[in-house]
Amino acid sequence: MRTRVGIVGAGPAGLVLSLLLAERGIESVVVETRGREEIERTIRAGVLEQGTVDLLTDLGVGARARAEGARHEGVELRFGGQGHRIDFAGLAGRAVWLYPQHEVLKDLIAARLKGGADIRFGARDVALRDVTSDRPVISFTDADGTPVELRCDVIAGCDGSAGVSRRTVPDDVRTDYFRAYPFGWFGILVEAPRSSEELVYAHSERGFALISTRTPDVQRMYFQCAPDERPDDWSDDRIWAELNARVAGGGFTLKEGRIFDKGVIAMRSYVCEPMRHGRLFLAGDAAHVVPPTGAKGLNLAVADVVVLARALERFFTANETDLLDAYGPTAARRVWRAQHFSWWMTSMLHLDPAGSAFDLKRQLGELELVTGSTAAATHLAESYTGWPIEL
Amino acid sequence: MRTRVGIVGAGPAGLVLSLLLAERGIESVVVETRGREEIERTIRAGVLEQGTVDLLTDLGVGARARAEGARHEGVELRFGGQGHRIDFAGLAGRAVWLYPQHEVLKDLIAARLKGGADIRFGARDVALRDVTSDRPVISFTDADGTPVELRCDVIAGCDGSAGVSRRTVPDDVRTDYFRAYPFGWFGILVEAPRSSEELVYAHSERGFALISTRTPDVQRMYFQCAPDERPDDWSDDRIWAELNARVAGGGFTLKEGRIFDKGVIAMRSYVCEPMRHGRLFLAGDAAHVVPPTGAKGLNLAVADVVVLARALERFFTANETDLLDAYGPTAARRVWRAQHFSWWMTSMLHLDPAGSAFDLKRQLGELELVTGSTAAATHLAESYTGWPIEL
Repeated sequence: MRTRVGIVGAGPAGLVLSLLLAERGIESVVVETRGREEIERTIRAGVLEQGTVDLLTDLGVGARARAEGARHEGVELRFGGQGHRIDFAGLAGRAVWLYPQHEVLKDLIAARLKGGADIRFGARDVALRDVTSDRPVISFTDADGTPVELRCDVIAGCDGSAGVSRRTVPDDVRTDYFRAYPFGWFGILVEAPRSSEELVYAHSERGFALISTRTPDVQRMYFQCAPDERPDDWSDDRIWAELNARVAGGGFTLKEGRIFDKGVIAMRSYVCEPMRHGRLFLAGDAAHVVPPTGAKGLNLAVADVVVLARALERFFTANETDLLDAYGPTAARRVWRAQHFSWWMTSMLHLDPAGSAFDLKRQLGELELVTGSTAAATHLAESYTGWPIEL
Repeated sequence: MRTRVGIVGAGPAGLVLSLLLAERGIESVVVETRGREEIERTIRAGVLEQGTVDLLTDLGVGARARAEGARHEGVELRFGGQGHRIDFAGLAGRAVWLYPQHEVLKDLIAARLKGGADIRFGARDVALRDVTSDRPVISFTDADGTPVELRCDVIAGCDGSAGVSRRTVPDDVRTDYFRAYPFGWFGILVEAPRSSEELVYAHSERGFALISTRTPDVQRMYFQCAPDERPDDWSDDRIWAELNARVAGGGFTLKEGRIFDKGVIAMRSYVCEPMRHGRLFLAGDAAHVVPPTGAKGLNLAVADVVVLARALERFFTANETDLLDAYGPTAARRVWRAQHFSWWMTSMLHLDPAGSAFDLKRQLGELELVTGSTAAATHLAESYTGWPIEL
């Protein structure tokens, strides 16, 4: 079996790439280990940058995000018991959309299947071979048990941080840049009305908290915890007491409700370079992971494949490899800026368990400066809502 | 002996305060342990914010700073072998002046003595007493050996980080906020022409370097070193090799010359709160120390005493203590912003000895973002050239 671009992974990177290539008349096959239902059912947060929504709209898959997602023109930074709004629309002329990632994936899958795409859900034993040759191969066992050898011109590794693509790049050519944070996020899902129209990022002497939302009736809230915190140690009462202690003040209180999900997520930063090995090109979480504080994950995946699709178009139409050669360095420029932004938001708002009283007061000085300076707030607003695809 | 305001210390804070009070018709006496010659001879760097120069000019002591100091309308951030200018004038509409601190002190001492001020140089055994009463006392032995009891209405503690004022605030009411950095600055003075018209702040894989200037013929250069680095371990050849390795690139090279001074300075952040105890008010380095990366030390001292002089004027003319009560919190707002800015410049440009390859690449992402974003560069330019005195 032959295709031009073999895409490993039907996440945001793989599916948007498949769509961008189809637009350019470049054939691709998507190979995914999970089933379609599992993908569409796995609830994932989603903050879409202005540029991401614009791109989805241009590709004909943005209608539901615009109609059912919530356009947010700012966020609130809370510290010292007071809220301070960062006005995205006023400062940066842009906004973000809250629209869950699995809904984005539903839209993308529907559009690709309607366009006749070949997506192999439920593939097993996925392996990559001959990636440094000009005929790289994706081998896998199809959902119906048939062994498949998919010969490609190019492979796009879009299968996330646990996928085979990254591991196919040999250790001796790959540099792993990694940072673990000394805390995690304790997340809950709650049946309750919204406590705030916009997201609340709270700094407190007890640590960070984030008040987010899923739907008008389901809210998502997080608070900084130990990386090995055990969810079962936290009763509902204890959770509400902790969250309220971190965010209340200046007339703001949480609207509580039934907690129907709780869990701890790890905080880490990771980049793999180079993002290319022979004819294998890594994109999205396969190449980099950011802590969720900057809301950059899905958006970085989309930005990667925009650069990659252009490079592939040039390769297949003009037989020129210059843009393919530039793919990694070009994408990495944005990745490192996003890594910095994610680290900055994290370090500004979280309590460092090894930190001192000096560090806490310095953070408050930083927050005063960021919310009190038009230039600094604009920098935050521009970074949060997303830099232009062309950097 | 009586005075209204007893000022401990003839540094920038003490002398500017004395001048501000004289302008308002409020009598003061300055008590200083060093001799006048020692103060005027001790060479100290000086980067004066726009607001500091404007204030000195308003007070009639800015003429020499403007005539002999160098107005700098930008600095260069160097990284990845390339220079990137931060255009202070264009971005913030302000500039800084390079004019050494001991020259500022010469101008202030001359002005105060001409105005008939009582400055007791060479005082010994300085001690503060009864600071929580309404008749606090500065006791000392005059340069001629006479014991003096100086009874005051208010004492201003402007005697730096090693002076008696801070230590007079009891441990149980004082909070010391402290941060030591895991590196120092190796500084040299060189007989050579300028290598660059503007200051160069350099990030490199070998650590930070700063190319500064004293006069057209004498240059000041620094490079990040271990906190306990021994200057004698560094030959001139080794120093030049290290400095060039950190700053060269893109056509830029250092102009070398005879090194006639070398030494290591510590990097630390410190704040004492409250900045007031009874009738004792701390200002300048007595209350806070910043690492030199942000060039904020002298300017913070001046900002402190501007706030303090207004409060004292209100106290002596209207017998109202509201502004005196607000002095510490008001001054501390600026202090913590400056602490943040100094920490930011330090952490963005220095190599963390405990850091990873991730941290180094993140710094480069940050530097690309700061130099590539008008908003971020404006934030840096505004912070470096100085926020308005009224925050």
